[in-house]
Amino acid sequence: MHAFRGALSLLRWDAAVMMPRGSSEVRGEQLAALETEYHALLTAPKVTRLLDRAQANERGLEDWQVSNLREMRRQRDHAIATPASLISRLAKAAARAENQWAAARRENNFALFAPHLEELLLLVRDKAALLGQALNLPPYDALVDEFSPGVGTADIDAIFKALSRRLPGMINEAIEAQASTALAPISGKFPTSKQRALAVEVMKALGFPFDQGRLDESEHPFTEGVAGDIRVTTRFDANNPFDGLLGALHETGHAMYDLGIPVGWRDQPVGRDRGMALEESQSLLLEMIIGRGAPFLRYLQPLLQKHLGVSGPEWEFDALYARLTRVRRGLIRVDADEMSYSLHIMQRYDIEKQLLSGKLAVRHLEESWNSGMEQRFGTRPAGAADGCLQDVHWALGSFGYFPSYALGMVIAAQLWESLHAQLPEVETQLAQGDFAGVFGWLRENVHGQGAKLPVKELIKQATGQPLGASALLRYLQAKYLAAAP
Amino acid sequence: MHAFRGALSLLRWDAAVMMPRGSSEVRGEQLAALETEYHALLTAPKVTRLLDRAQANERGLEDWQVSNLREMRRQRDHAIATPASLISRLAKAAARAENQWAAARRENNFALFAPHLEELLLLVRDKAALLGQALNLPPYDALVDEFSPGVGTADIDAIFKALSRRLPGMINEAIEAQASTALAPISGKFPTSKQRALAVEVMKALGFPFDQGRLDESEHPFTEGVAGDIRVTTRFDANNPFDGLLGALHETGHAMYDLGIPVGWRDQPVGRDRGMALEESQSLLLEMIIGRGAPFLRYLQPLLQKHLGVSGPEWEFDALYARLTRVRRGLIRVDADEMSYSLHIMQRYDIEKQLLSGKLAVRHLEESWNSGMEQRFGTRPAGAADGCLQDVHWALGSFGYFPSYALGMVIAAQLWESLHAQLPEVETQLAQGDFAGVFGWLRENVHGQGAKLPVKELIKQATGQPLGASALLRYLQAKYLAAAP
Repeated sequence: MHAFRGALSLLRWDAAVMMPRGSSEVRGEQLAALETEYHALLTAPKVTRLLDRAQANERGLEDWQVSNLREMRRQRDHAIATPASLISRLAKAAARAENQWAAARRENNFALFAPHLEELLLLVRDKAALLGQALNLPPYDALVDEFSPGVGTADIDAIFKALSRRLPGMINEAIEAQASTALAPISGKFPTSKQRALAVEVMKALGFPFDQGRLDESEHPFTEGVAGDIRVTTRFDANNPFDGLLGALHETGHAMYDLGIPVGWRDQPVGRDRGMALEESQSLLLEMIIGRGAPFLRYLQPLLQKHLGVSGPEWEFDALYARLTRVRRGLIRVDADEMSYSLHIMQRYDIEKQLLSGKLAVRHLEESWNSGMEQRFGTRPAGAADGCLQDVHWALGSFGYFPSYALGMVIAAQLWESLHAQLPEVETQLAQGDFAGVFGWLRENVHGQGAKLPVKELIKQATGQPLGASALLRYLQAKYLAAAP
Repeated sequence: MHAFRGALSLLRWDAAVMMPRGSSEVRGEQLAALETEYHALLTAPKVTRLLDRAQANERGLEDWQVSNLREMRRQRDHAIATPASLISRLAKAAARAENQWAAARRENNFALFAPHLEELLLLVRDKAALLGQALNLPPYDALVDEFSPGVGTADIDAIFKALSRRLPGMINEAIEAQASTALAPISGKFPTSKQRALAVEVMKALGFPFDQGRLDESEHPFTEGVAGDIRVTTRFDANNPFDGLLGALHETGHAMYDLGIPVGWRDQPVGRDRGMALEESQSLLLEMIIGRGAPFLRYLQPLLQKHLGVSGPEWEFDALYARLTRVRRGLIRVDADEMSYSLHIMQRYDIEKQLLSGKLAVRHLEESWNSGMEQRFGTRPAGAADGCLQDVHWALGSFGYFPSYALGMVIAAQLWESLHAQLPEVETQLAQGDFAGVFGWLRENVHGQGAKLPVKELIKQATGQPLGASALLRYLQAKYLAAAP
């Protein structure tokens, strides 16, 4: 099954990076066939018998084997809970909805998408209800559990409450504090080949193994493949040399997580990442906390000169730092800074819970979105394209995923706080492009744990603290509202 | 199962074109897992029951459905005849043998490879015996049948007898006739990007669909993928602008075959090529008969100027034609001209039959090879690297495959003779880069038939003649020994 996962991942990578445009139907059939077979293997009655027998003999097992068995059963429980026919109907409805979403977004017209979202939502509700029954969880919590095992709305609500009490005020303060520093505009063209060489040098310094991995370009950055053949993509913009690099950093964070799992566990269920919140914590730690931090930018600054041949005041350290830590009340999640990012997620979390429960009807989604933005950011989007149509997730039937991003930011700050306390020399190391300390700590406390522990236990063990928002608030306070670096 | 085949093909393509060097173990596991599952699907008892039931109701079926059913049973019979354990042992022995073959070839030392070939041969004999029992064929014929359904040693022997009676004398005559024309040396460097643009223009003219296919580079040219996402590779040599183009022509021949199968059959067993001899007939027709023919070279000549910026006497039509039709008594199969090519295959056919039956011991293989070459070509290789170690096939456990090449050449000439007779304007068309006539005829008579008919019936239907060597001999006589073009 590990080999099937790897093959499926390669087929998806190829579809986004190499596949000719006209081949998506053929690829869709291949993916569906392999996924169906994977599901059949996982839900075979024989698997249940084998799991039962192994569990009856659990006393003879080592710790990691007990966790491994728990993960096997968890995967099987999730797979059995949702019948293949529902999965297949969801996949087809999502394929239609995604097309319509793209069209509606182009036309800036939510009404084109609404009926497809409604159709999809009926199926997602069925799935959530079935999963909830099987896992003994409320429907929305069951969806979240797929991405972050053991985390539920109670945890998320507590975190979002703490964040929403403090963030709006902090954002105001930060914007005020930054108002006096004007950003010098960046001009010139930055050819892809040069941006690529820069990204490759940074990735090599991070420890990305180019003999067992690749960096390519795709419309949206992603990480696919498995440890041993890991494939990262980014998107280079000839007018902006930062987005491509930060995308590569983000994805390398995911890749390093997968690569840090013990080699002997790689083909076992316990040898997986611990869900999407943890995955995002690794990518955001690298992209946001490290990648937009002063030490890393001291290392990066001469590399920008070397690879892009740039110079001038806008390329000096102070200007770079100011640019990459700019706080803005923006409309678009993927362009958000690290301070306002979580507010974008809260907006989505509130709305998707209401959509799932039926409290919010799809026909009122756009207005609910716009008033939410007004309340949170003081601005309303001019149209749906910059509003409730900006993300693809709901069109793919992906509900319960958004919290992973905010949880990832929260966890990243918790991990960074502990790492920093235990390894005070980390800033000096980063300024020299030495990432061994960072990844040594992460491997020991996060990567090397695989899926051995549920999310909250893993964080408690790694940081000594429960999952919570205070580390993120401390981090943002210190970085944005205390003093210049 | 069609989707599995496509996925497997993509994994192989990626391994040869994109995969990082250090990832072969991971990929090997993925290929093995998917192949094992494919084999399990094909040999499931349920499939036998379904086939039996369908066959009992065969009267209600259309022609192509009857053939489809026959092909299903054929695939299943082949799969059941060889137990999974034998396949797996063969795959592992072949992986070891291939490594040792590469080392032995580098060292020019057959003794390093011999014990591995012996080990492999024992397993191949088991496979041939089991297949032979199941198919009621002699062991070697059973292996050939896998590649060219319905063709056996009796057919091959008759063809090779006719060829070996005439070819040696014709080769002498041709070499003598060409002796007076010196080939002007080609100098200069031909950048890959320019060679690629040339190949792409020619492939577009041939009708290769770049919206559902790709051209890439790999160490050895090949075609993978499925219709709808077909992937051709070639290898460009900066010192020689012909090999890369001819490789692309060869592979495009394979691709056009797959693309010409009726769209409605694509995921059915009847919607496959009719085995490797037919596949090679399509690639050799394009690479050898068309690609080294006067009309095509008239079309190509200005394209060489356009893309490579070349000029001078060595780039004029006469010089091009002389270069691409040069007959030589060479030692290396893949460098052979179309006249001497079949002799190289006969050499391998004689030897592999004797190896399989045990008449020839592996320890005598090298000497047997060298004396065979002396007899056929009047030259002995200086070492094993240019002799019995030059091809990888035996190291892969692939016995019974070589005849496909010579049969392919024979069939290509038969098809060309009929096509030419029925479409006399084809030469004018080709000289203008218009391939619609050629592929129209091939689609109707070969591609569009899929696997509906056994090889010999297909050729009889397409050409009105039985499978035989006389068309090839007529073609070579006319091209090389009659008059200048």
